[in-house]
Amino acid sequence: PGFMCLESGLTLAKNSINVAVKNLTDFSISMLAYWVLGFALMFGASRGGVVGASGWFPVFVVGDPWPAAFFPFQAAFCATASTILSGAVAERMKFAGFILTALLISSVIYPICGHWVWNGALSGIPTGWLGSRGFIDFAGSTVVHSVGGWVALAAVLIVGPREGRFPPNEPPNRITASNLPLSMLGVLLLWVGWIEFNGGSTLTFDGSIPLILMNTTLAAAAASIATLVVGWRIRGLPDVSLLINGSLAGLVGITASCNAVSPSAAVAIGVISGMVMLSVEHLLERLRIDDAVGAIPVHLGGGVCGILAVPLFADPERVGSSLSRLDQFGIQVLGIVAVGVWAFGLTYIVLYAYRRRWPLRVTPEQERLGLNVTTHGARTELLDLLTAMHNQADTGDLDLRVPVEPFTEVGHIAEQYNAVMTSLQRALAKTDTIINTVSERRPSSRRARPSQSISKPCKKLRFSVAVGM
Amino acid sequence: PGFMCLESGLTLAKNSINVAVKNLTDFSISMLAYWVLGFALMFGASRGGVVGASGWFPVFVVGDPWPAAFFPFQAAFCATASTILSGAVAERMKFAGFILTALLISSVIYPICGHWVWNGALSGIPTGWLGSRGFIDFAGSTVVHSVGGWVALAAVLIVGPREGRFPPNEPPNRITASNLPLSMLGVLLLWVGWIEFNGGSTLTFDGSIPLILMNTTLAAAAASIATLVVGWRIRGLPDVSLLINGSLAGLVGITASCNAVSPSAAVAIGVISGMVMLSVEHLLERLRIDDAVGAIPVHLGGGVCGILAVPLFADPERVGSSLSRLDQFGIQVLGIVAVGVWAFGLTYIVLYAYRRRWPLRVTPEQERLGLNVTTHGARTELLDLLTAMHNQADTGDLDLRVPVEPFTEVGHIAEQYNAVMTSLQRALAKTDTIINTVSERRPSSRRARPSQSISKPCKKLRFSVAVGM
Amino acid sequence: PGFMCLESGLTLAKNSINVAVKNLTDFSISMLAYWVLGFALMFGASRGGVVGASGWFPVFVVGDPWPAAFFPFQAAFCATASTILSGAVAERMKFAGFILTALLISSVIYPICGHWVWNGALSGIPTGWLGSRGFIDFAGSTVVHSVGGWVALAAVLIVGPREGRFPPNEPPNRITASNLPLSMLGVLLLWVGWIEFNGGSTLTFDGSIPLILMNTTLAAAAASIATLVVGWRIRGLPDVSLLINGSLAGLVGITASCNAVSPSAAVAIGVISGMVMLSVEHLLERLRIDDAVGAIPVHLGGGVCGILAVPLFADPERVGSSLSRLDQFGIQVLGIVAVGVWAFGLTYIVLYAYRRRWPLRVTPEQERLGLNVTTHGARTELLDLLTAMHNQADTGDLDLRVPVEPFTEVGHIAEQYNAVMTSLQRALAKTDTIINTVSERRPSSRRARPSQSISKPCKKLRFSVAVGM
Repeated sequence: PGFMCLESGLTLAKNSINVAVKNLTDFSISMLAYWVLGFALMFGASRGGVVGASGWFPVFVVGDPWPAAFFPFQAAFCATASTILSGAVAERMKFAGFILTALLISSVIYPICGHWVWNGALSGIPTGWLGSRGFIDFAGSTVVHSVGGWVALAAVLIVGPREGRFPPNEPPNRITASNLPLSMLGVLLLWVGWIEFNGGSTLTFDGSIPLILMNTTLAAAAASIATLVVGWRIRGLPDVSLLINGSLAGLVGITASCNAVSPSAAVAIGVISGMVMLSVEHLLERLRIDDAVGAIPVHLGGGVCGILAVPLFADPERVGSSLSRLDQFGIQVLGIVAVGVWAFGLTYIVLYAYRRRWPLRVTPEQERLGLNVTTHGARTELLDLLTAMHNQADTGDLDLRVPVEPFTEVGHIAEQYNAVMTSLQRALAKTDTIINTVSERRPSSRRARPSQSISKPCKKLRFSVAVGM
Repeated sequence: PGFMCLESGLTLAKNSINVAVKNLTDFSISMLAYWVLGFALMFGASRGGVVGASGWFPVFVVGDPWPAAFFPFQAAFCATASTILSGAVAERMKFAGFILTALLISSVIYPICGHWVWNGALSGIPTGWLGSRGFIDFAGSTVVHSVGGWVALAAVLIVGPREGRFPPNEPPNRITASNLPLSMLGVLLLWVGWIEFNGGSTLTFDGSIPLILMNTTLAAAAASIATLVVGWRIRGLPDVSLLINGSLAGLVGITASCNAVSPSAAVAIGVISGMVMLSVEHLLERLRIDDAVGAIPVHLGGGVCGILAVPLFADPERVGSSLSRLDQFGIQVLGIVAVGVWAFGLTYIVLYAYRRRWPLRVTPEQERLGLNVTTHGARTELLDLLTAMHNQADTGDLDLRVPVEPFTEVGHIAEQYNAVMTSLQRALAKTDTIINTVSERRPSSRRARPSQSISKPCKKLRFSVAVGM
Repeated sequence: PGFMCLESGLTLAKNSINVAVKNLTDFSISMLAYWVLGFALMFGASRGGVVGASGWFPVFVVGDPWPAAFFPFQAAFCATASTILSGAVAERMKFAGFILTALLISSVIYPICGHWVWNGALSGIPTGWLGSRGFIDFAGSTVVHSVGGWVALAAVLIVGPREGRFPPNEPPNRITASNLPLSMLGVLLLWVGWIEFNGGSTLTFDGSIPLILMNTTLAAAAASIATLVVGWRIRGLPDVSLLINGSLAGLVGITASCNAVSPSAAVAIGVISGMVMLSVEHLLERLRIDDAVGAIPVHLGGGVCGILAVPLFADPERVGSSLSRLDQFGIQVLGIVAVGVWAFGLTYIVLYAYRRRWPLRVTPEQERLGLNVTTHGARTELLDLLTAMHNQADTGDLDLRVPVEPFTEVGHIAEQYNAVMTSLQRALAKTDTIINTVSERRPSSRRARPSQSISKPCKKLRFSVAVGM
């Protein structure tokens, strides 16, 4: 219960209609795809530790509640992995391409990674090739977050940066978030969700849950403060996005080992994750890779940190892999590489092939107008008014009136605008009269010109001329 | 715990100060009314299966926690039923009339419907006339959602559509939602809340909770995707409200049988509920009935679907009514009709009588200005500025200045506006001078006219004339 | 689990970037400070009932889950106490000063108050000097909320009111909330969080949780309705903030005794807390003390109510202090006074000393521009445009163009604005031509003046003159 808070949090953290729609769609699709295909691939009987092949369309019997309880939990993980993508490619990827990628993640990429690490978790004997070698990822730093990060990285490389993000020969533009308080709410909900997520990952209610809660909280707190302080030094002001992405990086980082480290180690992991996140963000900007919400620094950077924290900080006894710290480190690195090759590689190939046949990206005109309007038909009244004004400016016909949507604030502005147009016409008529009376008295034909050159452009030129008069 | 997420979700899904106030008030009133009257009517000792008559002002002893645990849960159901109404009549119903209706629902309509279906639930032996005949509504598709839908239908019929929603001889206007990302958050919170709601409805913690969670999730996911796809075909674009109302319809639909169907059946119920929701929405629009947030399609349409899904999809053994599928179908239809007659009929009669004596609807002027401002005195600074400008336009006095609220964005605009007025006056004075010098030289009295006709309107006409100059 | 909903709720209820940042930072800092220092001071072995002195940097063993479970719960309380402050001093206190105060609260003030009342709670034998004398504060009416309220009161006295809040010789300005629906969501999340908060405060899962849930809900409902009705009478309209602060006051009020009163008493406590909140709000306004979100009336007013409600309404048996109602009343009053002197006094002294050396308050210019922009570098595009326009107005150079941020709504407006400037220049050139041709024919040098006085100001004066033409 409550794992979906995470979703709502992530949704908000990105915050626009298109992203919100993507998230809800994505969530629905992930659930269905994971049910149809993913669960079997992930938790079915293993074929050589690589892929599962039983348990399609899982139907759960009431007497055996575990698999059914396990399912929504895992499906939520799965949806998380594809949600990470939606933030990174926000504001430019086409809806159809996004849905394809979400399907790919939730039916193939995530379940197979998950199989490698977590197959057999229900019975307690890991059977995936990574899990059986002792790879440890308690609640998904790699299986969930790094996978999402790798997919997002492949997607932003194929899709390219937003227009205006990296102007040639200029420092990159930071495109400002539209609603930061909402994003903060997202983070706080996420924080709560994460605690339940991590807490729920024990599968059992042994005594470790309070420790998990405490570690998760302390890591996130330490990461956000460390990121705020360091970022404040670098950028010269306490930037909000530092706090948001810092605390998220801390959460991602502690996820792999939250059941097996001490509170002090959790603080250290949080601080390190925050620093890694800052560095990855800086690196991406240097490489001119455009990640709209910082999903790659947070989830890939934080995820790698978290996996490497297991051999460095965790109590080997509680980890339970019976490997030395060095061997543990080796298998953790192997896991990072394997997951990276699989998730990044497959996504890159599929999207590259897709792009050769279909457009992956909205048109520049659509990007300019915004996806809310062009893809989902969401209208803002202000936009309607601006469009009507543009039409008037283009035709130059002062007899046009913009439509007044009766009961709205913008409607009042439109009314005002129409009144202006009316009085402009009246004023122009009078000016003409004066000028005519002035020029009337002049015999030379050459005097007629200025009078014409005023009345003509006022009737035919853009609206702005009229106001200018 | 957590059932109020649903409330916050619903609150947001409608999203305006007036609606938010209505929801919080409504919630408070429902809680109190249900405590004073409703709980006794619903769960008191039954009089002929029709109405309860004991247990007023329930005081719970600590040794017997069930009734007290049951109370907030039921009170939340009750508040939900009246919250549905608030969305449907948004933007036009008077606050007093709304409060009356909310009281009616939570103290009479909902408790008595609930008595019919759920009385005796605590003891396990249904004693309401519907429940004892085998009517099954696990977590309130009819008792909660259809009741809310029927009441809303009666209310919108009495109150009438919003102005401008159905212009004569024209296609209906879709009045756009003001804040879709917020609505999406609402839906996601609602989704979480619903899962807990349905999960909590077992009253026992047997093994069925995971199945309930899974069914609820899959039904909502399937409904939202199906509605998105079909609506996309019909309307030509992936409309956001389709996703929102689609997933809600799926949630309402699965509510009656979430403990007794297989996951595949849950997917089917979700898809059907989504389609029914779309059809009802279309039907309402054809009949020119204005439901501001689609509450009737979602809650009445989805609720009826859900009740009929019990005989069609549920495992008879888990339903436990020991009726054949056909008999079950019969009693379900009977329940739908009975609840409809009771909830729709009573609301219609009460509101009809009320309207004869008191206004149920805000004045057109209030509707035009918006309820936020007129009922709750909430001011937006922009509105203040517009009002001040209007006053100036009406008096035509250029010496007026709008008040500058010192430290705000709109304050800057106001300042700018005042500066414009000042320079307008200065410019007009100069124009007068020129025109005077021009007309000075003309002897004829007829030359005086144009000069006057410019200077006079500029002083007396609306602000817009002045700008026009 | 879920206690952070409260935080997100409080965050929202105040709602601006700066406040949101303050809350997240505050939350992180409180967690860390409470871990480093607070927990030991509060729950360490008592020195004379005044302060704890053991258990620094708590490290929890897995076999003994209680302290670890206790920690995040208490840390959340601690963060709540300092969050209350952030609302009261919103919009004017400097970030650094705020962080200092938050540190002070979470590492010293709150833990020591908590020690007095709750030390020994884990073992069941109170050892703090207030707790051992029978002072009862079930879930923190005083320990959490009054402490926050006292600190906030000291801070607003030192920091002073916002500019424009109390204009001399005029009635005070109510500065309007920017986003009421968001605040409503905050309250509802808070409500949920509170219920879990109070419910979780039992430390055991005995049968009292349902009663606690019910009492909490009824008190909040009663308080919000009572405040709405009374405030409606006084102010003449159903003001939204009444509902919000009313329900919060009810929640604070019931907190001290929610496990030990009957539902009817809970309703009474809610109503009384709402009335006290209204009175304190009125009193603060009379005294010209500016509390930006009503934190003091809600948390201090409601908190005192709640503490006094214990002897008045609670069932002595369930309270368990074995004092007579009168003795209980005495010790409750003593607790209120002691906590007030400690929390208010220490904060006042520290902030007073701080202010002598460093600025506690942002500059008036920063306050005018808003903290979002000046402290956190958050830009709104509209502000950028306005700034550019101001520059143009100041220089009076019509050749300047404002920068067009390419793909945004405001970008369109900027484009439009530039077009206006272009055509203004063109129109002015033409006017000059006409005026020249008119004046050309006049021999007297005195005719040249008006023509100049038009063309000169148009080139040199503010933008607004140009538009005025």
